[in-house]
Amino acid sequence: MSLRIDDLNIKGYRVIQNTDAFCFGMDAVLLSDFAKVKKGETAIDLGTGTGIIPILLEAKTEGSHFTGVEIQEEMAELARQSVELNGLSEKIDIINADLRSLQENEDIKKKGLNEDGTQGQVLFDVVTSNPPYMRANNGEHSPSDTKAIARHEVMCSLNDVCECASRLLKTGGRFYLVHRPLRTPEIIEALKKSRLEPKRMRFVHPFKDKEANMVLIEAVKNARPECRIEAPLIVYETPGVYTEEIHRIYESH
Amino acid sequence: MSLRIDDLNIKGYRVIQNTDAFCFGMDAVLLSDFAKVKKGETAIDLGTGTGIIPILLEAKTEGSHFTGVEIQEEMAELARQSVELNGLSEKIDIINADLRSLQENEDIKKKGLNEDGTQGQVLFDVVTSNPPYMRANNGEHSPSDTKAIARHEVMCSLNDVCECASRLLKTGGRFYLVHRPLRTPEIIEALKKSRLEPKRMRFVHPFKDKEANMVLIEAVKNARPECRIEAPLIVYETPGVYTEEIHRIYESH
Repeated sequence: MSLRIDDLNIKGYRVIQNTDAFCFGMDAVLLSDFAKVKKGETAIDLGTGTGIIPILLEAKTEGSHFTGVEIQEEMAELARQSVELNGLSEKIDIINADLRSLQENEDIKKKGLNEDGTQGQVLFDVVTSNPPYMRANNGEHSPSDTKAIARHEVMCSLNDVCECASRLLKTGGRFYLVHRPLRTPEIIEALKKSRLEPKRMRFVHPFKDKEANMVLIEAVKNARPECRIEAPLIVYETPGVYTEEIHRIYESH
Repeated sequence: MSLRIDDLNIKGYRVIQNTDAFCFGMDAVLLSDFAKVKKGETAIDLGTGTGIIPILLEAKTEGSHFTGVEIQEEMAELARQSVELNGLSEKIDIINADLRSLQENEDIKKKGLNEDGTQGQVLFDVVTSNPPYMRANNGEHSPSDTKAIARHEVMCSLNDVCECASRLLKTGGRFYLVHRPLRTPEIIEALKKSRLEPKRMRFVHPFKDKEANMVLIEAVKNARPECRIEAPLIVYETPGVYTEEIHRIYESH
């Protein structure tokens, strides 16, 4: 395992990454900027990897508590170490669990305890996810292939992620997702099937005259159908030169 | 009825409009540019209104024949007169029919005649539509309200339009639609329900930093799911000044 510690350029926070495995990219940074967590709200990140999204959301928002769920034990352990490194153990929990059976996980069950100690339902205000983008090709990836699990739908499908998000959200709660625009119709179908209504979408284009290579989506549980398509987010002004907006997003953390 | 004849700035073509009723807008012009009709292909426009889309497609493409379907008799008659005015009666048919029962219409049945005179199936390469954008509000609109029929889903819903398009298309045939982006998730759901797979979408923004106010969609019958989100189409450079691309589109017709 080859480790590297990266400075996040916000509040002095850092994140530990295994450069042999999956490192976070611009996707996670843009999702953390697109997602809104209001004062006092709770948020949970599905497939948190390095823990980058809960860490950035803790830095950028006034949310009261953040949880990251990661199926790969080694990744979850590194994410936990990043949380400790930043002194955030009180604000961020990392849970090593399969999101397909999250409700049976003991760590998540504890969050559902009512004040009188009885078991309640675990519901969040916000769910985020930067899930695997690519369809699993049958048998091509071994379950021990760390990178493949982060990139391909080996361990969870788009439907699994949406169903899990819906189960975890209060009515009116928000699900924030970053994905490949090529899959937009499938994503919308999966969201609607889980009673998550797309309310806001933003397409990310490398240049203003190129097709989109990322999509950011906000879906609201049990909302009525009506979806704003925001102004396009353009990454580069000219090759190698970021636009003002990308500079603003990276400077605000 | 207050009539006006507008020059289309391509091949000397003109279109007759009833200014008391629905006049064509930028939507129809952008759809005619977005839609591709290849050499020898046949196309049909659902809810053709003034006939603007078949007339522009005849001018801009090498399609062999174009049909426009319009439920309102008076609108259909004006569209027919525009076709005659441009000497296009051999290339464009205007049919006064309800798209919900189009297969029973005698004029459309004639198109399905095989060379030996037996009845065949009427299938097109391309379907276009600039349908009513707004949901019908129960009872609010009278069925004789010409503008309401063009703007609200009084006479046909999104599902009706998609089902009709699917019935009319060959496998691999293309459906081109312009609509309000607020309804994108519903549109995608309706298309998929009719086995029309969204393959290409383009959002139209009034300014580069404003949300989209139009969406152009290409869906292909029985295709596999994968959808390109094209570069945004920006209308104004500054208030009142069109972008180069809009100038190009208006000048090419």
